[in-house]
Amino acid sequence: MPVGTQGTVKAVPQDTLESLGAQIILGNTYHLYLRPGHEAIRRMGGLHKFISWPHALLTDSGGFQVFSLNELRKVTDDGVHFRSHLDGSSHFFTPEHSIEVQIALGADVCMAFDECTEYPANRPRAEESLRLTMAWARRSLDHFRAHSQEVPWHELVAPASRPAVVRASTPAPEAHQTQSLFGIVQGGMYRDLRRQCAESLVEMDFDGYAIGGLSVGEPRELTLEMIAATLPLLPRDKPRYVMGVGYPDEIEQYARMGVDMMDCVLPTRAARHGLLFTSEGRLNIKNKQYAEDPSPPDPACDCMVCRRYSRAYLRHLMQSSEALSGTLNTIHNLAFYLGIMRRVRESLASASGNADPKS
Amino acid sequence: MPVGTQGTVKAVPQDTLESLGAQIILGNTYHLYLRPGHEAIRRMGGLHKFISWPHALLTDSGGFQVFSLNELRKVTDDGVHFRSHLDGSSHFFTPEHSIEVQIALGADVCMAFDECTEYPANRPRAEESLRLTMAWARRSLDHFRAHSQEVPWHELVAPASRPAVVRASTPAPEAHQTQSLFGIVQGGMYRDLRRQCAESLVEMDFDGYAIGGLSVGEPRELTLEMIAATLPLLPRDKPRYVMGVGYPDEIEQYARMGVDMMDCVLPTRAARHGLLFTSEGRLNIKNKQYAEDPSPPDPACDCMVCRRYSRAYLRHLMQSSEALSGTLNTIHNLAFYLGIMRRVRESLASASGNADPKS
Repeated sequence: MPVGTQGTVKAVPQDTLESLGAQIILGNTYHLYLRPGHEAIRRMGGLHKFISWPHALLTDSGGFQVFSLNELRKVTDDGVHFRSHLDGSSHFFTPEHSIEVQIALGADVCMAFDECTEYPANRPRAEESLRLTMAWARRSLDHFRAHSQEVPWHELVAPASRPAVVRASTPAPEAHQTQSLFGIVQGGMYRDLRRQCAESLVEMDFDGYAIGGLSVGEPRELTLEMIAATLPLLPRDKPRYVMGVGYPDEIEQYARMGVDMMDCVLPTRAARHGLLFTSEGRLNIKNKQYAEDPSPPDPACDCMVCRRYSRAYLRHLMQSSEALSGTLNTIHNLAFYLGIMRRVRESLASASGNADPKS
Repeated sequence: MPVGTQGTVKAVPQDTLESLGAQIILGNTYHLYLRPGHEAIRRMGGLHKFISWPHALLTDSGGFQVFSLNELRKVTDDGVHFRSHLDGSSHFFTPEHSIEVQIALGADVCMAFDECTEYPANRPRAEESLRLTMAWARRSLDHFRAHSQEVPWHELVAPASRPAVVRASTPAPEAHQTQSLFGIVQGGMYRDLRRQCAESLVEMDFDGYAIGGLSVGEPRELTLEMIAATLPLLPRDKPRYVMGVGYPDEIEQYARMGVDMMDCVLPTRAARHGLLFTSEGRLNIKNKQYAEDPSPPDPACDCMVCRRYSRAYLRHLMQSSEALSGTLNTIHNLAFYLGIMRRVRESLASASGNADPKS
């Protein structure tokens, strides 16, 4: 899932995302809450309409940004006090408020408000953090169930026109009329805490499940170990989402393990810094060796950038601080990431005899 | 003609320019000479190939930037000493060197090296400046005629595949094999100096003629007066180009007077600052009044931006300093400008009974 922090996948127009085959993009609740504000987006009919993206959308809970962008935050059992990184103004997020904001934004998938446990965290710290996440998951779900009819498009959208990814995850027709809410498994790097969290969340019966608190600085073997330990505890018939990963080989590996959804700023952020992912490995387009290189960024790629532009031109755009640099680099990296997932889907579909690899 | 200073119309991919119907774009010789360097572009086959623009291209002479970006320049009869705005390095541009650089870049249309007379300029100053421009025009033309076969694509391109705008301006088939060179009429705001310059240039027999030294701070009536006085002195059967104009109503007015080509950074630069040109006038998308405005930037426009995005979204992108802001604003402004010229062409074609308004 390409990340569209402020209601835009940075530097890429929506029609380009469509032609790349992006089926779902993310919005960040924290950023959209601060600007333009969730009530403004609600009044404009929700995030789909505001950003002109008639496909699937997912919003995070805001928790990750509240924790990562705020050195002065104060956490209580009730919620988190924090200051805006934009203007220093004071705000208070609770599970209920996160859900209220996410309902106003109206993405197809909302996330429970959680605390992303830092790495490293010793066992008492991980246990305390998990206690908070589980209490907040319950409160998120209760608030969501009580208010899910308040989504801005509730009366506007016919079930058949809901995005396929959401239809597939919601068995009952009437469920199409509201958003989905996913729970988030935390527990640091402790397998038994992960198990405890997963079992509790499954009992609460969310619409889907995420594994959070990974890719926060731990070695990759540990990331893999936690996913391997947690994934089997989550229902196969509901979406299983690993948050914040990863490199191209990682997302392929996790997808083959059974992970249905992943998001990461890596392809888009790296692109803006000149790092391109290719079938031949990583390529830093700023390098002088590409100054007169007429070959495409990735000779094996047929994206709209590789079909038209040379490494030399992309390097020139980067060296010249031209806006087109970010756009073209990002388009290629997204095409590369989406291509990996498309091939994984196709190979899984052919292995299972499924006629429609997109479903 | 959209301006593509550093080999990119800022923030807009080439395929989008094509879908907007842009037939020709500009490159700035000064910028491309400094970075990535004209010899590098020559080695890569010329600017068309380097930036992947298989349509018409025009390069200016570099003179305008040498004069406007350099406070420490030193002008002699031979040429101009200047320092790079990038790294302070010393450079010397002569008419011969400007043409040499432009041949290496290989645009379809090159411009003679001139001095853009400042405004206001008293008569002795305008006469002295004009003397320089006319001597430099002669030297530009002589150097061009002696070296035009050195264009990087000279052996590569079949005449039939040259862009239509160039084919139309070059009567003899063998002329298709090289670039075109336009002379530039200067003369300050003195009609007789303009006449003297125009007549001398026409006698030299350039492939096309530009009127330069306008839109440099003079009142608009004076711009109009100079164009009206100069245009009839230039051959109707060769392209007539007014440099550096202008606002939407200006370009329509000048086109109806018989001007064939114009360039201006206004639509692209203004877009990046949030100023949109619309059928209802100018619109500053930053204004708070658009914060929740669901209407398109220009309700009468059917460009890809107006068909998909609201003023509220464009304002949000601008307020959030998102890269997509520059891209979408620029696409709309270019669509608006190109739409004006398309309608002028159509109305001139229907008035003259010409079946093909594009020619």
